[in-house]
Amino acid sequence: MAMITVRALLFDTVGTLLDWRGGLIAQLQTWGAAHDIAADWPGLVDAWRLDFVLSIAKVSAGERDWANQDQLQRESLARLAPQFGMPELHRDALEELTLMWHELPAWPDSVAGVEKLRTRYIVAPLSNGHVAMLIHLARATGITWDAVMGADIFRHYKPDPETYLGAAALLGCEPAEVMLVACHPSDLDAAAKCGLRTCYVSRPLEYGQGRVVEATPDAGHFDLMVGNLLELAEAMDC
Amino acid sequence: MAMITVRALLFDTVGTLLDWRGGLIAQLQTWGAAHDIAADWPGLVDAWRLDFVLSIAKVSAGERDWANQDQLQRESLARLAPQFGMPELHRDALEELTLMWHELPAWPDSVAGVEKLRTRYIVAPLSNGHVAMLIHLARATGITWDAVMGADIFRHYKPDPETYLGAAALLGCEPAEVMLVACHPSDLDAAAKCGLRTCYVSRPLEYGQGRVVEATPDAGHFDLMVGNLLELAEAMDC
Repeated sequence: MAMITVRALLFDTVGTLLDWRGGLIAQLQTWGAAHDIAADWPGLVDAWRLDFVLSIAKVSAGERDWANQDQLQRESLARLAPQFGMPELHRDALEELTLMWHELPAWPDSVAGVEKLRTRYIVAPLSNGHVAMLIHLARATGITWDAVMGADIFRHYKPDPETYLGAAALLGCEPAEVMLVACHPSDLDAAAKCGLRTCYVSRPLEYGQGRVVEATPDAGHFDLMVGNLLELAEAMDC
Repeated sequence: MAMITVRALLFDTVGTLLDWRGGLIAQLQTWGAAHDIAADWPGLVDAWRLDFVLSIAKVSAGERDWANQDQLQRESLARLAPQFGMPELHRDALEELTLMWHELPAWPDSVAGVEKLRTRYIVAPLSNGHVAMLIHLARATGITWDAVMGADIFRHYKPDPETYLGAAALLGCEPAEVMLVACHPSDLDAAAKCGLRTCYVSRPLEYGQGRVVEATPDAGHFDLMVGNLLELAEAMDC
């Protein structure tokens, strides 16, 4: 792939390693049944995710102060819930539902793939989640990391260059020695602009069966394109 | 011990988990034999360590810009080597010897102790080393962390409060929910001033047999006092 040796792999987490949509819908259905609340859970989850993307864009643009993912998700949920058939949510319920983002299931290949890749490379998440959230997700899914790069370390969200360059610096690597592994082309394009290597992982079920949000990139657009992390491990000689 | 539950343990690393003195002397002896250089290795190692303490005090006082442990150790070594019978060291040798700080052996109880404690608590190093160094040390010794708190994340060295409070914040904890585990009373006193819990671990061989640098604290001065990390695991119900 390259004259420069990759020493570390950074992983987008929510989407690339974890099935946020399926996981949240399942948790909300259980919660709704326990509280006798029926709502459009898939609709709410899709809107909640989109609202987070809009919230972090405001932070990046300097239109609002830094706030971590929990804070932003809580605010979004309070705003969105009534539109999807839910009653007004009080503080404890908002907190409980927001923390569902800390309990997302891994895709079937994620844990074994990271474990294999860790035998030869330094591995760390680089996520718009915060460190405490990423620790919880790692313990819940059984992923072992060498370090945890949450957005709160940099007080910047991806795709701000401070995140990619900051993570490479903390790993003691040149940007070209680090590869970002992600299922979102926009994330990878931003990393490539900072000089990182890129691996696109296809996650066709991220937004639900048959729903595409970002088009599949052309062959050759990124350094690697794989169907899952076990394929990546094989491509990286692990 | 407390009405407030401890959720996370932070570990001083160089000294508390790792035998820096014994490890460096052994590496330098091997290096010296290979390069036909005989020098006062214990004397050099003791002076090197002390010079690092003085260097970080200058960073804390704002007398010099931030520099990570590798940079500071490299400068110290260049200055100290001639005093201990070594020839002038050129760039590659300085780099090779500085990286000996990334290859320190663990005390016999460190790996098993952290592993036991991790079954119930979030565990992370809080070190004046940097993230890349701490990753290397963890992989070399076989310690698994939930996150890695290097001084470069905060661009402050212990005992600056930014390190203790910054680490607690990244872990999503109140200071009182975090316990620092360290063999240096000065480190623990600074953590206690920030509201953290404290556990003193006795490491009587840190500075070599029979040499004491900081006096053993009085019983009751810290929240816990243990002889090793397996004792701590037992005291913490792991």
